[in-house]
Amino acid sequence: MGRVTDARRITTVRIRDGRLYAGRKGDHVAVEEPLDIRLNGQRLSMTMRTPGHDVELIHGFLHAEGYIAGREDVGEARYCDGAVIQGETGLPENNYNVMDVATRIRPLAPIAIRNVVTNSACGVCGSTSIDEVQTQGRYTLGHDWTIAPQTLFAAQQRFDAGQVMFQRTGGIHGAALIAPDGEILVQREDVGRHNAVDKVIGWALLHDRLPAADCLLLVSSRASFEIAQKAYMAGIPFLACVSAASSLAIETAERVGMTLVGFLRGRDDGDGRMNVYTGPERLDLSDAA
Amino acid sequence: MGRVTDARRITTVRIRDGRLYAGRKGDHVAVEEPLDIRLNGQRLSMTMRTPGHDVELIHGFLHAEGYIAGREDVGEARYCDGAVIQGETGLPENNYNVMDVATRIRPLAPIAIRNVVTNSACGVCGSTSIDEVQTQGRYTLGHDWTIAPQTLFAAQQRFDAGQVMFQRTGGIHGAALIAPDGEILVQREDVGRHNAVDKVIGWALLHDRLPAADCLLLVSSRASFEIAQKAYMAGIPFLACVSAASSLAIETAERVGMTLVGFLRGRDDGDGRMNVYTGPERLDLSDAA
Repeated sequence: MGRVTDARRITTVRIRDGRLYAGRKGDHVAVEEPLDIRLNGQRLSMTMRTPGHDVELIHGFLHAEGYIAGREDVGEARYCDGAVIQGETGLPENNYNVMDVATRIRPLAPIAIRNVVTNSACGVCGSTSIDEVQTQGRYTLGHDWTIAPQTLFAAQQRFDAGQVMFQRTGGIHGAALIAPDGEILVQREDVGRHNAVDKVIGWALLHDRLPAADCLLLVSSRASFEIAQKAYMAGIPFLACVSAASSLAIETAERVGMTLVGFLRGRDDGDGRMNVYTGPERLDLSDAA
Repeated sequence: MGRVTDARRITTVRIRDGRLYAGRKGDHVAVEEPLDIRLNGQRLSMTMRTPGHDVELIHGFLHAEGYIAGREDVGEARYCDGAVIQGETGLPENNYNVMDVATRIRPLAPIAIRNVVTNSACGVCGSTSIDEVQTQGRYTLGHDWTIAPQTLFAAQQRFDAGQVMFQRTGGIHGAALIAPDGEILVQREDVGRHNAVDKVIGWALLHDRLPAADCLLLVSSRASFEIAQKAYMAGIPFLACVSAASSLAIETAERVGMTLVGFLRGRDDGDGRMNVYTGPERLDLSDAA
């Protein structure tokens, strides 16, 4: 049997209305495995992710954290040969859970200060505040296009239909880049919502589409600070989420001039609902009464 | 105005069925702010959390990561005096986002290897695998009690009713420790599901209830590896989640002998549904057909 990377079949005991379904009927669960992210052979980070599209993930992650600015900064991204497990045949097999990126340049200093372990004593900790986790972006967010609510509703519905792993497991997040005409350019799923976003932004980077100024980022989950920050770092001016936004996501969007929409829910009749937290000028509201 | 710590009132433009509610009607969003976690003055980690119960959070976090084994290891936990912002009166005010724990002992080496930055070259990365992120627990999980499905359904319903911030914001996770008779011992909410769990386990630590062998941990969200790991580190033998479980959460529960229940949904009539992934022997199924 080959490696199962997205949804794994397991056995489960189901209890429904006092009745026990003892047949241990099969169910599907989302696959979660660690990805050890290395930069030039040094361990940088570990994330729990759904395997698949790891090259996109690592590019998106390194870009969001400020280590690389573009595709040309990366010489090679590959699974480490030394990371092996004993396979079913008894021979060693790569576990595909350790990936190393070799940069062509000296890696940039991370823009984000939040991951740097400092030794500062308590007396200087006044600098640690919300300001510190908010990083400086590379791109200014423009106002070049608008989207009609109906286009956004329809895109959200197609996105929903494209959440294949979610439909099988009920436990996985999705992210997509969407063009102003509603076309879904790329869609990815992952147990971690930040990973799903890293994968779609990594895709954009690998396709020379950063800054993704002509895209909106749609996420199936909530919008936290981290998601807003990742969109900003990729030059995406519009973030929409199916669930709620946090206070700091809204403050971040306000600060950088990003449109932030929450509780986006399209309906089969082509209409729907949304809450616009910031930047309503990127919505074409001419048909709205 | 005092500091708003849980749900903040904001203005939002609502679009409903092609109509624009331009009054910028008030809405509530969950508060998200960084907490800089310091151990003996050294920066250890930063988490994006909902302010409140930070002392519980930091105890739960340090225990889960293996830095402390019990309450007696901590001398003091306090907000750093130097972490100030300019208040509304123009005078400096503590930002309550930097907390330092002074230990009575030399802090233990972290049990988890996953947070340690190593400089190992690629040739030795074979050790990086799922085994490495799975830590050794302090406690063996016992089989001292069972719970009836109906008791669990009723507890989930009371837990749901107690999700006060979720009801206001629609965007926050919850966690609770529940006794075998269904009593909710402690319940917390946070924008981060791992933080909500750290808060309830920190509460247990501060109340000398670790190992929490006589409790089950209920979370409003999915159960990932990280949540299963935190339950294991606190000696909790039963984890139930309202949403799905990931593959690695199930493997971890299986490995350590923990009961894992997913899609737990009680109903008003006292019955409901659940999927039992591991450890069905901790459910009293004598009434189930």
